[in-house]
Amino acid sequence: MKLFTSVHDVSDINELVCEALRLKHAPFEHQHLGKNKTLGLVFLNPSLRTRMSSQKAAMNLGMNVMVLNVDKEGWALELKDGVIMNGTTVEHIREAAAVMGQYVDIIGVRSFPGLKDREEDYSEAIFNKFVEFCGVPVISLESATRHPLQSLADLVTIEELKTKNRPKVVLTWAPHIKPLPQAVPNSFSEWMCKADVDFVITHPEGYALNTDFTDDATITHNQAEALKDADFIYVKNWSAYEPYGQIFSGNEDWMLTNKKLEQTNNAKVMHCLPVRRNLELSDEILDGPNSVVIHEAGNREWAAQAVLKKMLEVL
Amino acid sequence: MKLFTSVHDVSDINELVCEALRLKHAPFEHQHLGKNKTLGLVFLNPSLRTRMSSQKAAMNLGMNVMVLNVDKEGWALELKDGVIMNGTTVEHIREAAAVMGQYVDIIGVRSFPGLKDREEDYSEAIFNKFVEFCGVPVISLESATRHPLQSLADLVTIEELKTKNRPKVVLTWAPHIKPLPQAVPNSFSEWMCKADVDFVITHPEGYALNTDFTDDATITHNQAEALKDADFIYVKNWSAYEPYGQIFSGNEDWMLTNKKLEQTNNAKVMHCLPVRRNLELSDEILDGPNSVVIHEAGNREWAAQAVLKKMLEVL
Amino acid sequence: MKLFTSVHDVSDINELVCEALRLKHAPFEHQHLGKNKTLGLVFLNPSLRTRMSSQKAAMNLGMNVMVLNVDKEGWALELKDGVIMNGTTVEHIREAAAVMGQYVDIIGVRSFPGLKDREEDYSEAIFNKFVEFCGVPVISLESATRHPLQSLADLVTIEELKTKNRPKVVLTWAPHIKPLPQAVPNSFSEWMCKADVDFVITHPEGYALNTDFTDDATITHNQAEALKDADFIYVKNWSAYEPYGQIFSGNEDWMLTNKKLEQTNNAKVMHCLPVRRNLELSDEILDGPNSVVIHEAGNREWAAQAVLKKMLEVL
Repeated sequence: MKLFTSVHDVSDINELVCEALRLKHAPFEHQHLGKNKTLGLVFLNPSLRTRMSSQKAAMNLGMNVMVLNVDKEGWALELKDGVIMNGTTVEHIREAAAVMGQYVDIIGVRSFPGLKDREEDYSEAIFNKFVEFCGVPVISLESATRHPLQSLADLVTIEELKTKNRPKVVLTWAPHIKPLPQAVPNSFSEWMCKADVDFVITHPEGYALNTDFTDDATITHNQAEALKDADFIYVKNWSAYEPYGQIFSGNEDWMLTNKKLEQTNNAKVMHCLPVRRNLELSDEILDGPNSVVIHEAGNREWAAQAVLKKMLEVL
Repeated sequence: MKLFTSVHDVSDINELVCEALRLKHAPFEHQHLGKNKTLGLVFLNPSLRTRMSSQKAAMNLGMNVMVLNVDKEGWALELKDGVIMNGTTVEHIREAAAVMGQYVDIIGVRSFPGLKDREEDYSEAIFNKFVEFCGVPVISLESATRHPLQSLADLVTIEELKTKNRPKVVLTWAPHIKPLPQAVPNSFSEWMCKADVDFVITHPEGYALNTDFTDDATITHNQAEALKDADFIYVKNWSAYEPYGQIFSGNEDWMLTNKKLEQTNNAKVMHCLPVRRNLELSDEILDGPNSVVIHEAGNREWAAQAVLKKMLEVL
Repeated sequence: MKLFTSVHDVSDINELVCEALRLKHAPFEHQHLGKNKTLGLVFLNPSLRTRMSSQKAAMNLGMNVMVLNVDKEGWALELKDGVIMNGTTVEHIREAAAVMGQYVDIIGVRSFPGLKDREEDYSEAIFNKFVEFCGVPVISLESATRHPLQSLADLVTIEELKTKNRPKVVLTWAPHIKPLPQAVPNSFSEWMCKADVDFVITHPEGYALNTDFTDDATITHNQAEALKDADFIYVKNWSAYEPYGQIFSGNEDWMLTNKKLEQTNNAKVMHCLPVRRNLELSDEILDGPNSVVIHEAGNREWAAQAVLKKMLEVL
């Protein structure tokens, strides 16, 4: 594997899930692969889980890791081509990416969307420039429109915890106070559409996702109907795709509660975290027996390690 | 050892000091213990000595280290239970701590007091929540009320440099311009009360420490009397315990000078650093032969390594 | 080698260049040298290339690395002696440097000039205090007046890519919008004056460098004349040495373009990066066949590794 930016970069998602689960049970068996190899983690936005799980995964494989907080360490990158750089940006992404590629064997990049210009965000301009210019394999640590390491960890979690074949998996919108990217629900949707699950998306009117990501999913505005008999519920807020990046008042009753779990098949509750307690998810769920959010976060390590191993094998 | 937050977590402080001194003379002999083990260092407040010495100690033991500057990397944690998180905090400490615990084998946490609400600070709310939710052994990198790695390094320094049994050790308050926590003097006091030393505390009126930490110490407002025949002088500013977090004008003459050393037993002068020169301690002392502050800072490495070794041995 | 702050610390620059090129072809052959040795990288100013290349070089040699962003991690250092520290600085460089030296075997320090007080900047007060107090070998990661790791990488690049003996190397001033330090051109000049090249400096009137660094160079205000038959062109902006730190309007036509390359010997174009596109250097050059800036940045790794290896050999 040379690139990991979406489910489309994976030839066999079931095999990748199995790889992650094998690594979970024997994390340190492939350290020859990473010896004298270096992973660069480039953050244009903050990160907790992704940073720690990716770093840990790389170290499990014997790799060295260098972390670069571009957002905090004061290096404003120019992203547009052809401009006269007489403003606030100090380096063009063409040089920055190419230089980083000189010092590492694999690069992970995090770059959030601006949520202002849909076309720009969905073109993945920043992320794709990194891929184009850095000259080494690239892993998405969440881009403007996708979060594939999260989605892989989600699928690993479902595979681990499912109690029957083809479980019912429901992605439900949840309330929030700020406009959030569509990256996590987009990505989760396109992975679930390829997985052996019965996949349903539910959200209030106005929050339809880009259909490129949801093609094979059942979509409904009726949350109660969607949750019925669910085996897994994936809770997540996102802002509107149209009008882009907007949020609408109301819908506070979309918060998941224990009451709503009653009509499910004792569903396990997932969330990519960070989660706003008592806004997206109630305390009673997060502190109760149905929540698997910490377990799910733990699986981020094995998802990252599986992807890194595939990349190291062909380096 | 599963927890290192105070002297009460140590069954035998003399043995721990001996362990630190053994490691100082053979730092790299136990790298099998730390192989494929990871230390997470979580800073909610800035750190220089603690960060470097803990990281170095872990690497000496063959561990990997991940550093997370929660204060700088933009992750505002919610600490209160039951609240609706519709404000500025993005993640609850329950999830944040539990997630960090998924990726590391031992966590070190630094969390300063607010110095506004004594009950809250002295309940060690933040630190104890980390311990409760992270699920792995925890080392205090300085909490609201204690700094045990510093105190252990201080005791190591006294054991190394003492020229007689049961030396006289004096903790003296020093002037400062800002209200500082009581963590270092609290912690130093409770360690000295357990050590084989003659321990005296001296401070101006108004700066009495919480008696839970100073029970067996001699306490006086007469600095000259306290310093008489001292073998070690520990210089440190702190704010009042009552009224909590306050400082009072005056007392500039409490700065330690060479003149004051004359009545001591050629005392060695200690300070946890950072030190405000010519405010807490004069240049002449810091640059003179009696200062052992750099040596003391160097011992932070062996204190941290001794604690990490005890934790690794029972992991 | 115990100190690497300028070309004057190098007994044989040709041998050091050869060492760098040997390491480039066999990066991992000397890991016994760095085993259980730690490099501390102390940044008082931002860094991308220097940070990554130094860290990578150290890891190639088997070293551990600790990075300290003093500028970002909130530790305001006092640099002046004898002051009463009752202001905003929390620690004196005397203690900070000495403490850092306790935990590492080699320290790299980056400290930019203020560009306000020439005497202070050219005395290298901050850098020299670090050297004086830290007690371990020190590598400059760019100081107020020099950037020797960059210059070594530049010479390595010239040696690698030259097609004839004694190539003509031209340092040309380039436009910018902000006053930049003289460190890179100073340093490049003093290395080129010692190298086996025909070295020419060209800049507009008013931008003469300190002659301590340029003694043996040919200097002209006629850029076209300077570029004639050049084999390498080193493009760089700098502010005036006299009046210190000033910039003058005009001179936009000093930007290097393909047109100007026509009179050269198909010159290779170098720049230390970051570069302001279409201000210092045109897109057409940076994206064209004559630019070697990424290759040059890659050589930073081998320059750093050569210096670290020399230091480790005598540690």
